[in-house]
Amino acid sequence: MQDENVTWHAWPLRVRYQETDQMGVVYHMNYLNWLEIGRTEAIRALGVAYRDLEAEGLFLPLTDAQMAFKRAARYDDEVVVFTRVAEFGALRIRFESEARKVELSFWQSLCSAQGQKNAPWFAEPQGELLVSGNTRHVWLNRDWQPTRLDHAHPGLYALLKSLRDMGESAL
Amino acid sequence: MQDENVTWHAWPLRVRYQETDQMGVVYHMNYLNWLEIGRTEAIRALGVAYRDLEAEGLFLPLTDAQMAFKRAARYDDEVVVFTRVAEFGALRIRFESEARKVELSFWQSLCSAQGQKNAPWFAEPQGELLVSGNTRHVWLNRDWQPTRLDHAHPGLYALLKSLRDMGESAL
Amino acid sequence: MQDENVTWHAWPLRVRYQETDQMGVVYHMNYLNWLEIGRTEAIRALGVAYRDLEAEGLFLPLTDAQMAFKRAARYDDEVVVFTRVAEFGALRIRFESEARKVELSFWQSLCSAQGQKNAPWFAEPQGELLVSGNTRHVWLNRDWQPTRLDHAHPGLYALLKSLRDMGESAL
Amino acid sequence: MQDENVTWHAWPLRVRYQETDQMGVVYHMNYLNWLEIGRTEAIRALGVAYRDLEAEGLFLPLTDAQMAFKRAARYDDEVVVFTRVAEFGALRIRFESEARKVELSFWQSLCSAQGQKNAPWFAEPQGELLVSGNTRHVWLNRDWQPTRLDHAHPGLYALLKSLRDMGESAL
Repeated sequence: MQDENVTWHAWPLRVRYQETDQMGVVYHMNYLNWLEIGRTEAIRALGVAYRDLEAEGLFLPLTDAQMAFKRAARYDDEVVVFTRVAEFGALRIRFESEARKVELSFWQSLCSAQGQKNAPWFAEPQGELLVSGNTRHVWLNRDWQPTRLDHAHPGLYALLKSLRDMGESAL
Repeated sequence: MQDENVTWHAWPLRVRYQETDQMGVVYHMNYLNWLEIGRTEAIRALGVAYRDLEAEGLFLPLTDAQMAFKRAARYDDEVVVFTRVAEFGALRIRFESEARKVELSFWQSLCSAQGQKNAPWFAEPQGELLVSGNTRHVWLNRDWQPTRLDHAHPGLYALLKSLRDMGESAL
Repeated sequence: MQDENVTWHAWPLRVRYQETDQMGVVYHMNYLNWLEIGRTEAIRALGVAYRDLEAEGLFLPLTDAQMAFKRAARYDDEVVVFTRVAEFGALRIRFESEARKVELSFWQSLCSAQGQKNAPWFAEPQGELLVSGNTRHVWLNRDWQPTRLDHAHPGLYALLKSLRDMGESAL
Repeated sequence: MQDENVTWHAWPLRVRYQETDQMGVVYHMNYLNWLEIGRTEAIRALGVAYRDLEAEGLFLPLTDAQMAFKRAARYDDEVVVFTRVAEFGALRIRFESEARKVELSFWQSLCSAQGQKNAPWFAEPQGELLVSGNTRHVWLNRDWQPTRLDHAHPGLYALLKSLRDMGESAL
């Protein structure tokens, strides 16, 4: 899927008018939504749709979230959400995320350079840091009971583990 | 429950910072949310929790919505949502709604005058009109099939019908 | 910019988890947000960023909105928002919009066929209709006073007018 | 305003349908919105409207947020947001928050027992813990520059400081 050390998934979005507030910037709770979009698209880039996981009875709710707000995003800004697997086990996972302001044209040129149309992977996040965050999650089944991913979905378990391992070897 | 002609239910809310946008006013889609809160509380004031209806397998999605935006609500404004049943049948219902800017102290004095703590009923909406709206709905069962309310929940059917009838006799 | 009669602008988006509700479908107010995204991108495709208009002191708030909900969108669905200018004058504009479920791969093939990467124009909306809507707007200046677009921004006035005229000649 | 050690401000709200997601619970980002409502109402209970602060050119954006999700809130649940000042200085402030599920009738009886209609203060949060959170903020002026609150608004500075001091003496 990607070279070693290239562990950050990138996903672009554009700031919606609805996400602004009367300070003229993005209302802070929306960054949490972007982080989720980043996680969803990172998993999709691994070949798994989160929608399908839920259809199979696997859910990944948050147990903790932490965000540091560095700079405010503004309406119509082009933002790229970078996501990687920071900690990983059979029951729990922690994602590390960064939302950065990146000119879409710059980002498209990076994608082209890699011969990729979408969803490239990076060794390091690029652009002006807006928000960094960490979210911790637990795998649950339909009865909201913790569930081992290696049993429930061995394929995704292996994919996420390899992604985490690459990050570790990169340190 | 109330005197004849007193067919508008009133429910207060305060504008949330999250609901503003960079024009410094409430982003327009949020009014649609307020209209729903008004409908939910009107039904609750009749003695029925919409939550219980869904638990019993009755759903009331929208088929149409129409809104006229008259004046902009601003952060921290005190707003009262007025709701009444405008059209009514076994399968379908149309609510008429008005969101108005009303000083909460004025509204509380009106409630006190009527000896009511909450959820008073009015013959006419009060305050400065912000948005007027109409929403059309259809009753559905768990299989998303249209369902007659008079069969599925005769009690609520009778309550809503009496509310509509009072409105008609008031014309 | 495009052939005669080709008056519908198309913009793809994917349903966010945040936009769903406990009925398992998109909460209705979010469609209103999508219609705005469609309008913004249609204007951008004409060469004008709405962000720049606001920076110049031109605002385009809604005066009326109407929506008909035909089918529910679901999480992760691929949706295309179609937008066209339905009525047009110096002070006011009405947009007609349709949100349709369209496989992104199908939409990308249509774009490729037209040699366009993004934001194609269509003679007819494609895909399964979810929501159709109309929104009316008035141009305002910084003092929230109605402002003639032909004076305030003759270039955009001409672009929107030509778009409307093509729609009319297509009837 | 209140007895020593009674440092938690309480504010009730009801879960909106719009805040749910397809898991049937409140979408996680909305808790961050509730924490803000709690902070706003705590400041209002001290006698200061945050709206007026912004009108005077004082802003209090977030620099960090942390949340632990313990139990999921559901549609129509009655929730009380507890807020207190955890750290305090001239430039920065940290609020500690808890969203708890509390029957509104229980909460109203507590308020009555204290002879208060609204916005009571508590020595300890009550009810079933849903989410606990911490938010850090910095005071900014109109130019987005850090601003000392003791200079910009000595009255609010004294009020917040006394609230923090009571919390400390309670330890």
